[in-house]
Amino acid sequence: MNDRLVQQIQFITEIDKLKTILRQTRLTDNSRQENSAEHSWHLAIMAIILAEYAAPEVDIIKAIKMLLIHDVIEIDAGDTFCYDVKANLDKAEREIKAATRIFGLLPSEQAEELRQLWEEFEVAKTKTAKFAIALDRLQPLLQNQQNQGRTWQIHGITENLVKKRMSPVQEASPILGKLVEEIIADCIAAGYLKKHD
Amino acid sequence: MNDRLVQQIQFITEIDKLKTILRQTRLTDNSRQENSAEHSWHLAIMAIILAEYAAPEVDIIKAIKMLLIHDVIEIDAGDTFCYDVKANLDKAEREIKAATRIFGLLPSEQAEELRQLWEEFEVAKTKTAKFAIALDRLQPLLQNQQNQGRTWQIHGITENLVKKRMSPVQEASPILGKLVEEIIADCIAAGYLKKHD
Repeated sequence: MNDRLVQQIQFITEIDKLKTILRQTRLTDNSRQENSAEHSWHLAIMAIILAEYAAPEVDIIKAIKMLLIHDVIEIDAGDTFCYDVKANLDKAEREIKAATRIFGLLPSEQAEELRQLWEEFEVAKTKTAKFAIALDRLQPLLQNQQNQGRTWQIHGITENLVKKRMSPVQEASPILGKLVEEIIADCIAAGYLKKHD
Repeated sequence: MNDRLVQQIQFITEIDKLKTILRQTRLTDNSRQENSAEHSWHLAIMAIILAEYAAPEVDIIKAIKMLLIHDVIEIDAGDTFCYDVKANLDKAEREIKAATRIFGLLPSEQAEELRQLWEEFEVAKTKTAKFAIALDRLQPLLQNQQNQGRTWQIHGITENLVKKRMSPVQEASPILGKLVEEIIADCIAAGYLKKHD
């Protein structure tokens, strides 16, 4: 096997570990926590299905690639729960170190391509990154709606926190932003999500 | 919410169920069976990383989409173990019915697009489908190499069956075909895979 292919296969076998990184979000049937690999799969399909709601400047293929690899750094850095203020303090530092090691397994130009995709997502400035981030926010909301707000209840998350977390959806797509508002209202009406005390 | 978006969200929440469909392949750390959603994620990234080994006619973006949705029909049809001869007899019939229901949740032109991607994969005639199928065969081999051939041992799978199963890899890509030969030889030498009695 040539060196280049050895590096590529090492990366491919390494990222299998993302299947063991658990998120706070639970499956729609509430049977267990979701892992970051299957979550990334779900987001990539959402990008295909919901592409028509993206701004015209959004590169959907790039968004799909971005969503497929955006969580790979969690293999070393772990999944940081979005509502955990303390854990979010050193999140960036842990993730940069992880990106260097994990993408660094690949041949240099592929390492660079994936690292740039990940950084574009993290920096959240381009329309493509903003659309990808919007999907990454929308998906757990859909999961919570289906499993009756289980993650919100376990962690005592209230309406104001969820609304703040969902603001990038409105920014990326007015139609998806409207959807989010309707889902939040439905979840409050159904008793899945509490209003702020 | 407009009817079109309702249909799209129904599809997106429905496919969450693929995360509960277990394959015979196990994770590289042998901790559990892999599910079909995280497996599809792994294949889509493999298509990005190994694109250079595909024939020039292969449409990599189409291969990525194909790999992301190729197992969605298992939500209704279940995962059919590739070495289970009996279960493979009615596999096609079960899967066609599943495709009609699951892709049918989407607005008609999206349902048609995804169904065509799935059919192209199943019919296995185009270069793009052949490359996607090669990755779908290569990935469990890599998993088995890492977890010391656990699936092969559980089911008494021997070299001749694995070699036959891997033949589409050689056909789609001589370099990846050579890789498969080396991995099989290594797995036999390490005692992970038995030669045919």
